[in-house]
Amino acid sequence: MPSKLPRLFVKSPMHAGAEIALSPEQAHYLGNVLRLKPGDQVLMFNGADGEWRARLVSIGKKKAETILEHRTRPQDDGPDLHYLFAPIKRARLDYMAQKATEMGANLLQPVITRRTMAERVNTGRLEANAVEAAEQCGILRVPEVGGPEKLSKLLEHWDAERLLIFADEAAPTASPIEALSAQRARPLAVLIGPEGGFEPEERNALMQQPYVLPISLGPRVMRADTAAVACLALVNAVLGDWR
Amino acid sequence: MPSKLPRLFVKSPMHAGAEIALSPEQAHYLGNVLRLKPGDQVLMFNGADGEWRARLVSIGKKKAETILEHRTRPQDDGPDLHYLFAPIKRARLDYMAQKATEMGANLLQPVITRRTMAERVNTGRLEANAVEAAEQCGILRVPEVGGPEKLSKLLEHWDAERLLIFADEAAPTASPIEALSAQRARPLAVLIGPEGGFEPEERNALMQQPYVLPISLGPRVMRADTAAVACLALVNAVLGDWR
Repeated sequence: MPSKLPRLFVKSPMHAGAEIALSPEQAHYLGNVLRLKPGDQVLMFNGADGEWRARLVSIGKKKAETILEHRTRPQDDGPDLHYLFAPIKRARLDYMAQKATEMGANLLQPVITRRTMAERVNTGRLEANAVEAAEQCGILRVPEVGGPEKLSKLLEHWDAERLLIFADEAAPTASPIEALSAQRARPLAVLIGPEGGFEPEERNALMQQPYVLPISLGPRVMRADTAAVACLALVNAVLGDWR
Repeated sequence: MPSKLPRLFVKSPMHAGAEIALSPEQAHYLGNVLRLKPGDQVLMFNGADGEWRARLVSIGKKKAETILEHRTRPQDDGPDLHYLFAPIKRARLDYMAQKATEMGANLLQPVITRRTMAERVNTGRLEANAVEAAEQCGILRVPEVGGPEKLSKLLEHWDAERLLIFADEAAPTASPIEALSAQRARPLAVLIGPEGGFEPEERNALMQQPYVLPISLGPRVMRADTAAVACLALVNAVLGDWR
């Protein structure tokens, strides 16, 4: 088994010979945790220029310099798939951000609904979780994280070309595959409501939009982070890049 | 919004008028955490007789008695869907057991593969997580938990009538929906390998079985618990009870 190189997300432009300074946290991780030395290799990506193999030029306690040697993978963006979610508490929100990243979402958008418990959202923490999942899972694009928005505001400014899929116990078609298969290729969004569900007025507002598609996720109740992965899997398989 | 009644899994047979003693942990939870009193209501299920509304007859520090009043839901078993997984470490294994329960699995079967990191599996902890997920998500059937088995042993004793679906990066059909749709209705199993994947010999052994179906889960790598939910969602949607 080849040993796995550490994989880091950076914000610098990448090309052969580019010299890139790492953050203090990255320098600490490589030097003090992994005990890498100058000359050791790492993988790096920035969400735009593919994945590169780099070599450590210098490494200190809080500073490290690398030089890019050679591109190991071209950029691959995945589906245009927004993930909208009512924030939930604590550890499950971390998981949700990680999972949506693994499922290829390009935007994580917190949505405030009437039954949302957590009104404040730590978007920095969501970003850190998205970066961690992308680093660990070989993903080349880190999703953007939006600031929290009210559901009504989001619907008001919605681009009607983007299909908004939401998990709905009362969906008119029992088969989610059938409901998704009837749709044409277009930009996508998946909305997962709060643990208590949408209020009837919110559901009505959703159902009235021509760009909204309710789908059923079967007869069992799921936690929000489980429903998120299930819904994103079905959407990827029928309309996204799992084909 | 109606207040949600606490929901408890018990092992006793259930019928109207049955008197059921709760476990010390359940008595503690209802009495000391939720501060319920005699006369208060709870929901109960045993995996066989549906869901019942019960009334607390007595409650002490470590003892509680209930009487079943009326059945609120008939038993509903969900798909015949085994979930086989290479054990992973710590918190993610808890999540995996919870998620497989929410996705309707009726057996959680730890599988030891060559790249399995955790050889010991705490089956009691898996059971507790399955019970917790069933209690919280309104599920009527708690999956059984099997003792850890080597992959080779499982294949040796496999009932060939049960389709064994495994997530495979090199699956011959790119579309998982297409691969699953070509199958007839039959008992099902989903196998999720270790984080490092199966060894080539293990994959070959799997591919040689007439009851094995490899499916692709798209171009991105996922953690094992994410792949589990994604794969179970597709299987439920095409062959299970999400139709």
